[in-house]
Amino acid sequence: MTGRDGGAALTPPPGESPIVVLVRPQMAQNIGTVARAMANGGLFHLRIVAPRDGWPQEVAYRAASGADRILDAATIHETVDDALADCHRVFATCPRPRHVIIPVRTARAAAEDLREINSRGLRAAILFGPERAGLDNEDMARADTLVRYPLNPAHMSLNLAQAVMILAYEWWMAEESTPPRAFMTNETRVATKGELEGFLGRLVKELDACGFLDNLPKRPGMVRNLRHLFERGEVTEQELRTLHGVVTELSRGRIARGGPAVPEPTVDPQIDG
Amino acid sequence: MTGRDGGAALTPPPGESPIVVLVRPQMAQNIGTVARAMANGGLFHLRIVAPRDGWPQEVAYRAASGADRILDAATIHETVDDALADCHRVFATCPRPRHVIIPVRTARAAAEDLREINSRGLRAAILFGPERAGLDNEDMARADTLVRYPLNPAHMSLNLAQAVMILAYEWWMAEESTPPRAFMTNETRVATKGELEGFLGRLVKELDACGFLDNLPKRPGMVRNLRHLFERGEVTEQELRTLHGVVTELSRGRIARGGPAVPEPTVDPQIDG
Repeated sequence: MTGRDGGAALTPPPGESPIVVLVRPQMAQNIGTVARAMANGGLFHLRIVAPRDGWPQEVAYRAASGADRILDAATIHETVDDALADCHRVFATCPRPRHVIIPVRTARAAAEDLREINSRGLRAAILFGPERAGLDNEDMARADTLVRYPLNPAHMSLNLAQAVMILAYEWWMAEESTPPRAFMTNETRVATKGELEGFLGRLVKELDACGFLDNLPKRPGMVRNLRHLFERGEVTEQELRTLHGVVTELSRGRIARGGPAVPEPTVDPQIDG
Repeated sequence: MTGRDGGAALTPPPGESPIVVLVRPQMAQNIGTVARAMANGGLFHLRIVAPRDGWPQEVAYRAASGADRILDAATIHETVDDALADCHRVFATCPRPRHVIIPVRTARAAAEDLREINSRGLRAAILFGPERAGLDNEDMARADTLVRYPLNPAHMSLNLAQAVMILAYEWWMAEESTPPRAFMTNETRVATKGELEGFLGRLVKELDACGFLDNLPKRPGMVRNLRHLFERGEVTEQELRTLHGVVTELSRGRIARGGPAVPEPTVDPQIDG
């Protein structure tokens, strides 16, 4: 088989981490995309109950996009009970639960619970049913907790790999520390207000020189408008240097043309006054 | 084409909702799975820039699992600028941003921002790049905000449909009101403490009758253990009725056997004292 090197960095996380149990999966390709989704979310342990087309399957490895180690380490089981025998807690994903009396969690809350279960050294499994039918009642009776994905009621049907993706994503997010909002300033820095003032002062001076601000009653509002535009974002030092260059070049053009020629205004003088 | 009826309930949401823009997608099947993921998360508007294999494609409809209306309503554009011309805000998904100076959001924060943008009546687009290469620098320069998915750094590579799935899921979750934790009590109700006491009292009485609690020093601890077991979950009225039946039948067996025969204890009398 080819392409088995891509997952070199994938190793079982230390301690326990939830086991994804695919119950009677039909398509081997889906087993591969499930492994890929698990890798994305930092899950490693895969158990497969009675795969329809047998195991291993080359097509699963091709679909796994490098998550080969997860497939290599996957175990095959004849029954759900066999797959769950050493687990302490069992979650089951189930879009339309009926006639069951059981705790239910959203995917997000389930991920938080799984982190908590894990932190106590308990081994948790998550059951995912076959592509078409989903888990049957006997499978669900093995679970102590159900997981329901809050999704568009007009189109609930989730692809198997996408169901695993959402849970794996929430598992990862439950301990993710990336700031939700950041400002990327690659190889530069946010300009200081002093630097910004330096630019604005120079811009206004050049605009005065070319006559753009000649309408004295409107001048304060127009200058304020320009200031608002440049104050709004976090202008970087690099951008300010570019803007200084723009002003320099535009002024040079006017001066080179020798006089009253005014560059085309980039701000409509009528917008404010 | 077959199977185009499944999406009958899919209609454009009222007002604005974010537009998914697929930039130069390669595989038509992925366009279909993207539409399915959009439907799952309540997104409807799809724009496709320069699809490699042309449009429409039967394979996309087959992969959409009923999200046909999204594909029917999708528009095709020659350039990214054309697809974005009427949009007020542009987000771009980008796993490995380099040499850009721009606000960055996690998928979750991006979804919150998109809800806020939407509530102001502004039209937002989200750019997703081609399967292999992702968005190029020119595409990214059209965006005012980048979206990064916090995922396992050992395996970041996301399938196109899964990238759309996560954003669509977060879009849906940003206004989802399902309680994260619930207890499903289908066609029954949680038993009152009085009903539970009624059962526990009867159980202890039967256990006294059969001699299970004859070790007087250990009796209080054993009764307490049993109580803890039944108090722990939210026992339902239906389950209590079943348990009453179990005690009745087990007792009847003992009585029918005519005397001192004690049923096999299901709780080890040595566990506590």
